[in-house]
Amino acid sequence: MLDETILSAAAQTLERLRAQGLTAVTAESCTGGLVAASLTHHPGSSEVVLGGFVTYSNVMKQALLGVPGALFESVGAVSEAVARAMAEGALSRSGADCAVSITGIAGPGGGSLDKPVGLVWVGMAETGRATRAERFVFKGTRAEVRAKAVAAALALLGRERGEARPKIV
Amino acid sequence: MLDETILSAAAQTLERLRAQGLTAVTAESCTGGLVAASLTHHPGSSEVVLGGFVTYSNVMKQALLGVPGALFESVGAVSEAVARAMAEGALSRSGADCAVSITGIAGPGGGSLDKPVGLVWVGMAETGRATRAERFVFKGTRAEVRAKAVAAALALLGRERGEARPKIV
Repeated sequence: MLDETILSAAAQTLERLRAQGLTAVTAESCTGGLVAASLTHHPGSSEVVLGGFVTYSNVMKQALLGVPGALFESVGAVSEAVARAMAEGALSRSGADCAVSITGIAGPGGGSLDKPVGLVWVGMAETGRATRAERFVFKGTRAEVRAKAVAAALALLGRERGEARPKIV
Repeated sequence: MLDETILSAAAQTLERLRAQGLTAVTAESCTGGLVAASLTHHPGSSEVVLGGFVTYSNVMKQALLGVPGALFESVGAVSEAVARAMAEGALSRSGADCAVSITGIAGPGGGSLDKPVGLVWVGMAETGRATRAERFVFKGTRAEVRAKAVAAALALLGRERGEARPKIV
């Protein structure tokens, strides 16, 4: 059901996380569950992936992830601050070691001059490390923007973190 | 990124829900976000889909959906009781009109004599209606079992409910 390129990227991300002894969760808006679906395609992914949050509406971003409602008024749902708050909320509410978040405008509607279709923020929160966020503007159809956002999230989640932390059992 | 047959089923489910003025959420275990991803593939899905829960681990089923921990010992995660509890938890924690849940054994490992690979329970909770659950045993690879479980969940979510309820604005 899912594209081979993405599934291969998901396998690599899982391998990286497993080698580092890390568990992960996702917090997805515009990708609607595709990151979690790509990771859990692979047998054995349950060792790494605890689950995920699909917070498509702003109400769900608040209720499930604790994103402050004021942010939707001040900076909007597709913003660095919301991407960070989504990742941090997913981390604290799941007990995972790391959480990746995605909020963006997949289109075809919903774009504006300062926030065009294809704008995507990817956030990453980890225990004991500073939260990160990356901004992208992807070209393409709605499906292409979503696929590129998934790839960016998988890359951020699976990046090298230096020395593996000792696993406390 | 997603299979055309599933995307077409998702479009039909969205249309049914929209025509009935209903909002929906998902609670997915073995499908790992594929139901939410299929629905949100379609532009305008945010009118219907509030979001979803990917509760891959039992701890997440408890923490995010309030599934009683005792059920995992007594009947196991892949059971009618857990499918019902997942759907009811997703409904009450999201404020949506209906919630569909999926818990199953996608394989290739994890099967047993009484719970073979391919066993999937799909649950459905709706405000003002009794919770339902349906049992399936699907044949095929892990990807095929997941795809068939997504199709079953979309069918249950999008089924005719008789007369549309008046929308209170």
